[in-house]
Amino acid sequence: MRTAAANAELALLLEVSSTPKPGNVDRHREYPDLRFEQFVAGAVGTRCGFELAADGEPIGVAFERAIEGMSQQRGGNTQFGATLLVTPLVAAARNGTLTPDGATDVVESTTVDDAVSFYRAFDHVDVAVDEPPEGMDGLDVRRGSDAESALRDRHLTLADVMERSAERDGVAREWVGGFPRTFETAEAIAEGSGPVTDRAASVFLALLAAEPDPFVVTQHDREAAVEVRDRAQAVLDGTESVEELGADLVEREINPGTTADIVAGGLFVALERGLEV
Amino acid sequence: MRTAAANAELALLLEVSSTPKPGNVDRHREYPDLRFEQFVAGAVGTRCGFELAADGEPIGVAFERAIEGMSQQRGGNTQFGATLLVTPLVAAARNGTLTPDGATDVVESTTVDDAVSFYRAFDHVDVAVDEPPEGMDGLDVRRGSDAESALRDRHLTLADVMERSAERDGVAREWVGGFPRTFETAEAIAEGSGPVTDRAASVFLALLAAEPDPFVVTQHDREAAVEVRDRAQAVLDGTESVEELGADLVEREINPGTTADIVAGGLFVALERGLEV
Repeated sequence: MRTAAANAELALLLEVSSTPKPGNVDRHREYPDLRFEQFVAGAVGTRCGFELAADGEPIGVAFERAIEGMSQQRGGNTQFGATLLVTPLVAAARNGTLTPDGATDVVESTTVDDAVSFYRAFDHVDVAVDEPPEGMDGLDVRRGSDAESALRDRHLTLADVMERSAERDGVAREWVGGFPRTFETAEAIAEGSGPVTDRAASVFLALLAAEPDPFVVTQHDREAAVEVRDRAQAVLDGTESVEELGADLVEREINPGTTADIVAGGLFVALERGLEV
Repeated sequence: MRTAAANAELALLLEVSSTPKPGNVDRHREYPDLRFEQFVAGAVGTRCGFELAADGEPIGVAFERAIEGMSQQRGGNTQFGATLLVTPLVAAARNGTLTPDGATDVVESTTVDDAVSFYRAFDHVDVAVDEPPEGMDGLDVRRGSDAESALRDRHLTLADVMERSAERDGVAREWVGGFPRTFETAEAIAEGSGPVTDRAASVFLALLAAEPDPFVVTQHDREAAVEVRDRAQAVLDGTESVEELGADLVEREINPGTTADIVAGGLFVALERGLEV
């Protein structure tokens, strides 16, 4: 039996191994400055942090440690969102309640210290984020550990931080909503057949066709995200080829990163529930 | 800084990610019953064993634990040889002497208990091996843990077992000879440029052209292994395409596995010496 930490790492590895995933790095497609092997090293690096979560250490500490480990490669931010999504799920698995309610319990138990650690994780790596909402400058995540006093002054827990980000950030939305898309993804992967990475790639495309990817909105704009959603649907309908969509998104540097994060989360849940590789 | 155990796991992952590697599974080529994702899960599974080696536990115990973890996937034997090659190197790294002499010290310190654990590892997975030499039936590795009394009666350490296998087994030959090809491979990878997996694939081809792969001798015969060596040289000379060679070897199920093991070992040494991904 693999430990929860090993399954979390494996989920990240299987996610990036799944192909085709239009717009994202996978084992058949990479960017000159962001390579498959850097995602592999990133995933290996997260494991120590996931082990802390599996040992009952605070979520914030575990997450920051995972991101520090992830950053030990030259590609920059490879799996920040996926790690953020999976960390509370590892804690829920440790509690024996890897369910929407169990994951919500973990989220609701987070503290101001967890929020401080979360911000500190941004010291390790550059993450593409939006400008903070008005009046929230002190809480700009790009301030990293410098935001500590603002967090403590306002008594904001990590759950509070996620609540404030949920409108624009797809991983935060999972955190505060009981991880609905993550658990649906786990079921879709478990119900599929054939190699796990083929199933994950199919589910990626279905997720992409269902909602505009929030990371594409952040990285480009809503129009681009809606276009990607509609073209993913066209691939499902057989009116556009997945290769054509992939090549175009890579050309325009459009990376549906949140959708990939959710696939990683779904893979973790499915592995914990017995999915065989 | 990644731990030695993390670097060992990463070495296995980078090895299977390196492409093209004619005849072996890589991230662009797999068999229906032996898939890329199974090597990924196999590598993740080895880490607990490598952690034991890094903590100073006996080599045999660490190796058996790594193989038990590796076996938690449906592809069967994915990285038995690579794990056998890397385990003593992790111990040497722990001792601060990741050199031919340091690795030899680790090998020479092995005990009869290590040999028993090594045999027990064969209980976890089917490994393609030759018939044992005449008069050695009691020591057929396929007997797994049943060979314990034969090992104890003859007072054979794991180094003794490797000595007896060195003529036919390329990993055993590394063990008893100070890991010459492994350290050469590490240097070649470190001296290369570009993505690590491209460098590893180049070195794989050079190793393949230099000597008949011992695993191909075991799996098929010496003639096949010599043919593969000569055709790898033809690829280097530009008179055969690497894709053509790869397709033919896959078709005939010829897998130069020992050469891949040595690349994994070389990647581990290079990573420990500071190779960046």
